[in-house]
Formats: sequence, C-alpha cells, structure tokens
Amino acid sequence: MWKLTKDKKILIVGLGLLGGSYAEALTDLGYHVGALTRSESSIKYALEKGLIAEGTTEIDPEFIGKYDLLVFCLYPKVFLQWIKDNQKYIKSGALITDVTGVKRSVVYPIQSILRDDLEFIAAHPMAGREVYGVQNATKKIFKNANYIVIPTLKNTPEGIEACEELGRELGFRSVKTLTPEQHDEMIGFLSQLTHCIAVSLMVCKDSESLVDYTGDSFRDLTRIAKINESMWTELFYMNKDELLLQMELFEEKFNILKNAIKNEDTETIHEIMKLSTEKRKLFDREKTETPDEK
Amino acid sequence: MWKLTKDKKILIVGLGLLGGSYAEALTDLGYHVGALTRSESSIKYALEKGLIAEGTTEIDPEFIGKYDLLVFCLYPKVFLQWIKDNQKYIKSGALITDVTGVKRSVVYPIQSILRDDLEFIAAHPMAGREVYGVQNATKKIFKNANYIVIPTLKNTPEGIEACEELGRELGFRSVKTLTPEQHDEMIGFLSQLTHCIAVSLMVCKDSESLVDYTGDSFRDLTRIAKINESMWTELFYMNKDELLLQMELFEEKFNILKNAIKNEDTETIHEIMKLSTEKRKLFDREKTETPDEK
Repeated sequence: MWKLTKDKKILIVGLGLLGGSYAEALTDLGYHVGALTRSESSIKYALEKGLIAEGTTEIDPEFIGKYDLLVFCLYPKVFLQWIKDNQKYIKSGALITDVTGVKRSVVYPIQSILRDDLEFIAAHPMAGREVYGVQNATKKIFKNANYIVIPTLKNTPEGIEACEELGRELGFRSVKTLTPEQHDEMIGFLSQLTHCIAVSLMVCKDSESLVDYTGDSFRDLTRIAKINESMWTELFYMNKDELLLQMELFEEKFNILKNAIKNEDTETIHEIMKLSTEKRKLFDREKTETPDEK
Repeated sequence: MWKLTKDKKILIVGLGLLGGSYAEALTDLGYHVGALTRSESSIKYALEKGLIAEGTTEIDPEFIGKYDLLVFCLYPKVFLQWIKDNQKYIKSGALITDVTGVKRSVVYPIQSILRDDLEFIAAHPMAGREVYGVQNATKKIFKNANYIVIPTLKNTPEGIEACEELGRELGFRSVKTLTPEQHDEMIGFLSQLTHCIAVSLMVCKDSESLVDYTGDSFRDLTRIAKINESMWTELFYMNKDELLLQMELFEEKFNILKNAIKNEDTETIHEIMKLSTEKRKLFDREKTETPDEK
C-alpha cells in the first residue's frame, strides 16, 4: 500500500518554475529529491541552492529506477512521449503524478499505456508566476493557491490519498478533487478563456500612446497578456473543444451587453451589472501573494 | 488673469469619494474649501474630519457666490442641469472644472450655455476606488494616478494652466492634455470596454462552484465587475458611439484568435501572443497603490 512517508525518494522530471518549487518544498520537508531535466545549468543551480540532492540530464535507467514517486513537470506532449519511451525504467510499484494544466488529453492516454505495476494519479497545482525557470522557483507560490487532484476509475484510494497528501505537504491553501471533464471545463473558463481575453485586448491598439493614461482596469485585465506562446498554444489545442465552448459563451454574454447599450435598454444593462456585482462579491478575498506582487 | 493662488476659495459640488478626496487634499494645502451636496450626513462627516471649512445642502446664492473655483463631482446629466439652473449665482470671473468620466457630451453643451464671464475647463482625474461616498475619500488615490486636462478652443491659456496646476497641487503622478475626442476614445477603450469585458465574464457561469478553483487570472479580470449600475450606464450612454466602436474592435480581435484556435493555425496564434507579450511589457510598472490594495 503506497503511502507518502519521509523515506520516499521523489524525482522531479522537468526542473522549471514549478518543478523547482516542488523540489524546494519537498527538500525542506526532509525528502530525498532528485531531478531529471534537459539543461545542465538548471541542475547546477538547483544543486548549488540545495533544492535537490542529485540531478542528471541523462536518461539513466539506474538513476530513474531509484525513485518511488515521480512528478512530471513537462509540456503535455513531451510528458506523453517520455512515458512511452522510458516507463520501462521506472521502479515497480512507483507512483506517478504531474502538474499539467489540461487533463482529459493527458490522463486517459497515459493511464491506457502505463504498465500495470505503476499508478498515475493526475494533479494540477494552480500556482505560477509570470516568469519561468528554476531560477525563479519558490515554494511561496503554493501558499494561497489551490491544488486539484484529478482521479479516474483506474486510480486506487491509496494513490488518490497519497496525491492529496502531497498537495498538503507542499503547503497549498486547499486540496480539492475533480473529474478530468470537470477540470477541463473549469480550466477552459477560468484560465484559458481569461488568457484569450487578455491577449485579444492587448493587441487591439497601438499601446505606446495609451500607457500614460492607463489606470488599473486595463492593467489588471492584461496582466496575463505576457504569455509563453509555445506552452499556451499546446494547452489550448489539448483542450480545444472546451476552450471554444467557453469562448462562445463569453461572446454571447458580451454581445447581449453590447446590444443593450446600442438600444439603450437600461433595464437589461442594470440587470447584468447587478448580477455581476453580486457574483463578484463571492470572490472578495486577498489576492494570492506571489513574490511578483506587492 | 485667473491663477490658482492660496487665497482662492474652492467649492466642491457633489461630496462623494472624489469630491471628498479633492476636499481633503486642498484643505491640507491651506485652501478655503466649501461643499455643496445633497446629503446632510456627508457635510457633517466632512466637517468633523476637517475636510471642509463649511458646507450646505441648499442652493444658497450667497454661499455659491463666494467661490472662485468650482469643482463639479456630479453625474454628467445632473452637472448639466445644475449649470442650467444655477450658473446665475456663480461669481463673475470664476473658474469651473469637473471630474466627469466622459467629455464630448459634457464639455460642448456646458461651454455653449455658460455665461461669458465664466470659464469651464474640463478635467478627468483618473483615480477611484471600488467604494463610494465621502466616508471613503482619501487624497492617497491621486498619488500614482493620471490627471487629464481637456481644453477646447473656448478655453483661455490661463484657465488651462490653472487646471493643470490644480492637478499638480492634488498630487497626481502626471498631468496630461487631450482633446475631448481623444479623451473619449481613450476612455471608451481603457475604461468602458474593460468594464464591459469584466461584467460579461462575471455573468457567464454560476460562480459559487468556481470560487474554490480560482487563481489570480479570473480574479484580476473581474476585479472591476463590481459596478455602480446607474453611474456606469449613464457614462456608457454618453459615450455610446465610441464605446460601441471599441467593443467591436475587441470582438474582431477575439474572433481572430478563436478562429486560429479552431483551425489550429499555430502561426497566427504565436504571432498574436508574441505581439501581446511585447505590448504588455510597456505597462510593467507598479500598480497604483490605493488603500484597497496590498
């Protein structure tokens, strides 16, 4: 029976911002943490800062075979390919988890090809910064963030419990459970749609002349318009059906408001604004504190 | 020749959040500040806190006639009506300014009916909070905000200079000049469009179930979705042509991105995201500090 105990050796595959932050948190808790990543300089940095006990850039069967828990912090397609190519090296009975931002297109394919003596329990730590790389890693990003476990019928109660325990150990504000379908709808709306809106708004005008006049509204709506195009395009494609549904839902609501303004339909506008005000009140808590923000 | 000197008596008409903040700043600088407003309790509060030297809720010709500078902090239509009804009581040679968030539909009508011995020079202090009323007034909201002077051919160089000086005295980060047309396009885009987006996004879904999973993206995009429906509807109507143009511009860009995602047109998506990232970098400065924010 798999249980997250301090003797478990944890391997971070993909040592970027999230992987590095996992490494810091888990090393500080006393786990043995190793890293496997493409860049030699990331390993060097993480060793110097004491984020990991050991690391390599090589697919070394002996190294991989030592670990009890593997956390994949890779782009979705790279993750899929890695499992296909290298799952043969993973220790029997090991638990696998991830940080991928889309789920249906990752969880089902991986679980369908995974060896019977391994378990993959998906997770989505909803934490991040607008900067990348292990050099920006910090476990502080977990403090006010949500951690979501995404089990399927293929998961065991022990695997699910171990993954939840990992979220608690990392210091997340809350640990919740969703199905892959619920997760992808939610993320399509809360994260992907909002990035599409921010990006579209940002490219509307020549902005140099606007900077002088900008208040916080525009600044807030476009904070996430600085975006890693390779990662986000891949995430969009892997959740395309849901994202398009959410974009259409938003367009529909926006169009209702636009027509009400055009027709000076005050009743409809007031109704929408009152509903919006009411709904927004539910979200009034302090913002997540990340080191980028005041 | 009108000049903003410390002996000038300043009347705030409409003692709410902005009017109260003007009053605090100007009183602290040593000006004699009076207030004329609808609510007795606002006057009482402002007197107790030392924001004003005197105040009334009555249209008192003698009281109004004492003032050299009148700052109107009213809804646009109320402001227009006030001038029609009461400009006869204003001291000859007085200067009038305002804080109204739309300009073409306010500046031209008022300047066309104003007595020849008065001057109205329009201004838009781009500062605010998500709360209302003199009880929430504080001059701190000006610190990192922009102040825009909006002259027309009817204004004198002295009137324009005095209005700019007022912005500097209030402590704004920057004082700029725009035409009414430039102002309304800019505000239609930066402020009104962003509020329409935030409100539309907020009413898309049943949000109670979403609160648990929300990261900062959705929170940032909907911060301004708590909205005073009467004020904003009036501002929307008074800038309707420009706002509708800006809404259509945004819809166009959003649709280009949506179709690129639908067709997996990676080149177009990357192009948009790179442009967005590039443009957003221009806006990377610290957020305006208001007392609501950390």
